[in-house]
Amino acid sequence: MSSGEHENLALSMLLVFGGAKIAGEIFERLRMPAIVGEIVAGMILGPAVLGWVQWNSTLHALAELGVMFLLFRVGLEVKSSELISVGGRALWVAILGVVLPFAAGYGIAAWWGEATLTSTFVAAAMVATSVGITAQVLAAKGLLQTTSARIILAAAVVDDILGLLVLAVVSSFAKGDVNVAGLVTTTLLAVGFTLFFTFWGTAAMQRILPKVSASLRTGEVQFNFALVFLFVLAVGAAYAGVAAIVGAFLAGMALSESINHRVHDLVHGVTELLVPFFLAGIGVQMDISIFRDSSALTLAIIISVAAVLSKMVGCGLAARTLGKRAAMQVGIGMVPRGEVGMVVAQIGMTMGVVPAHIYGVVVFMAIITTVIAPPLLAIAFKGEAGGPAEERFQLG
Amino acid sequence: MSSGEHENLALSMLLVFGGAKIAGEIFERLRMPAIVGEIVAGMILGPAVLGWVQWNSTLHALAELGVMFLLFRVGLEVKSSELISVGGRALWVAILGVVLPFAAGYGIAAWWGEATLTSTFVAAAMVATSVGITAQVLAAKGLLQTTSARIILAAAVVDDILGLLVLAVVSSFAKGDVNVAGLVTTTLLAVGFTLFFTFWGTAAMQRILPKVSASLRTGEVQFNFALVFLFVLAVGAAYAGVAAIVGAFLAGMALSESINHRVHDLVHGVTELLVPFFLAGIGVQMDISIFRDSSALTLAIIISVAAVLSKMVGCGLAARTLGKRAAMQVGIGMVPRGEVGMVVAQIGMTMGVVPAHIYGVVVFMAIITTVIAPPLLAIAFKGEAGGPAEERFQLG
Repeated sequence: MSSGEHENLALSMLLVFGGAKIAGEIFERLRMPAIVGEIVAGMILGPAVLGWVQWNSTLHALAELGVMFLLFRVGLEVKSSELISVGGRALWVAILGVVLPFAAGYGIAAWWGEATLTSTFVAAAMVATSVGITAQVLAAKGLLQTTSARIILAAAVVDDILGLLVLAVVSSFAKGDVNVAGLVTTTLLAVGFTLFFTFWGTAAMQRILPKVSASLRTGEVQFNFALVFLFVLAVGAAYAGVAAIVGAFLAGMALSESINHRVHDLVHGVTELLVPFFLAGIGVQMDISIFRDSSALTLAIIISVAAVLSKMVGCGLAARTLGKRAAMQVGIGMVPRGEVGMVVAQIGMTMGVVPAHIYGVVVFMAIITTVIAPPLLAIAFKGEAGGPAEERFQLG
Repeated sequence: MSSGEHENLALSMLLVFGGAKIAGEIFERLRMPAIVGEIVAGMILGPAVLGWVQWNSTLHALAELGVMFLLFRVGLEVKSSELISVGGRALWVAILGVVLPFAAGYGIAAWWGEATLTSTFVAAAMVATSVGITAQVLAAKGLLQTTSARIILAAAVVDDILGLLVLAVVSSFAKGDVNVAGLVTTTLLAVGFTLFFTFWGTAAMQRILPKVSASLRTGEVQFNFALVFLFVLAVGAAYAGVAAIVGAFLAGMALSESINHRVHDLVHGVTELLVPFFLAGIGVQMDISIFRDSSALTLAIIISVAAVLSKMVGCGLAARTLGKRAAMQVGIGMVPRGEVGMVVAQIGMTMGVVPAHIYGVVVFMAIITTVIAPPLLAIAFKGEAGGPAEERFQLG
């Protein structure tokens, strides 16, 4: 017996998942990254071109779950000790990768004639790296064990906290009420949450998981426990002020040394289903009204170029002692801004300090930095991959 | 960087998935079916008790995907030849399992004093079996290879088409416009779709899948192809007038003889994540306003008892030559009405022939028949299971 709901859901699933996979295959054959094909599929299916798929709450939820599971899966491949060992370097990568884009964003927007508060929001939107795209590229190519990959992941976690702080300060200025005690509390909470699970998560899971496995009676205990832990840390992260995906990554990392191989496979199935919704979702959100306003388009191009260069130079400089190649890899890996920049601009819109054309500029920048990263990463890591992706991924 | 959306989604995931798994574990320890625990978790979290989880579009989508993947997974374990071999028997199980509940439903509602059209909608809502619950119980216990299980699955497919036909006829009467040619077309389309994929799906996939695997370059080709085929048949089913889950089942069955073991594992991961949303979702939709109206509650109890008995007797009679035990198993396996009955009642409400209190009666009946099935199935199949569930499931 059919109902409209069934039909629409299955049709959306078919269009987005099937479209993403077909476009990925076409891009692969044209020697371009499949991941970009999946984003382009979203642009084509979405309001920008065909208008067959709209950005609704279900697609949003599937996209959110997609990037959450992606970071969880990446976390499962990374030992916390490996991340801690590159912590000092990653801290500098994150800091320079925040300072330069902020300065560039503020400078350009102010020079363009935007108001001070508007310019600070443009600057804040240029700060935070969206690590999902880079993580997907590195995971698919089996490169998560490289030093550059570890620095990128660690720096992305620090970057998320710095982004939180920048947004909090900028929002305070916009409200005209800077609460220093509040900012300190927010920062301490976010830093404390992250450090706690980075340093003690693995040991805690090594103690807890065997006991849970031994005492529960229902099927697939380890998988179910892992998912509950993932959701707990995603919720906890949100309360602590960091991104849900950072919580998902920390959950994966904490479990990486105690979970069995079967859980990897089961999580991989979920990720394979959901990640195309995250990727195509970026394309569906593409707002092409910017192309009708040549002035805004000019600004968008300038901001996008600055966003790419400032991140590459800032992060690359901090990683320069690792050699030119690794510095390039780290710099490029931190380029994508993705949905994080859009969230900052949305908050600015809600506060009335980001006008619609500037929101369009930020969305354009977020998409360009996201789409440009995979081909640049492919060049930067050329020669470091080998064998089919999914097999290597399983070896992790 | 956090946003409200992230936080709410992760929190809903945690509450529903975590709550379902904890309740399942508690029920398992109390020697009750874990599946009932997951439904009860939804009742407790939903508006009926705590009100922490609301039935929104995201939860609806996850629940729909859950039952879709559940039937897909079940299809992967069933060869179409096995289903065809029990086809004749299953046809009679489905027919008697439709006639008796319809007669019982109409008789009781009319005797209670409801209008003729209202009574026919109550009757129609009592017809269609929701095979998801039974499929989950049989899959988890590794019983899909039994003759009873095959008859249940085949009968559920036929039952879905009969349910479609009954609803179409009843709706035509309600509109006062019986279009015989339209009804015949609808029936032929539904029957044709189902027969086509049952008889030729497997052979087609055995030809197509190796070619697709050999020619595509992106990772996890078989899994991605299987998902696209699943969504194609779910959409196709909806257009042909049968349920999306019947399409999902047919897709799984068509692939069952050509897909590799890795695809089973990946699909299993998706199913493990999503099925709790289907189960808990049934509980979340529980409407307790019925308990404030003692007259409606009385009718609900009578209707529910009639729904259980009429399906058991009707289906059991048709399967009686298989022996008393198998007849009982088949009869009980067809009892759950789940969401299908609710959809019929909703259509009746939209047409203005099903008043709110009768809708409450149907929802009550749908939930009671769903909750009562797992414990009855456990008794009926006692002694036929062995070894831990997920291992046996993998052997399929």
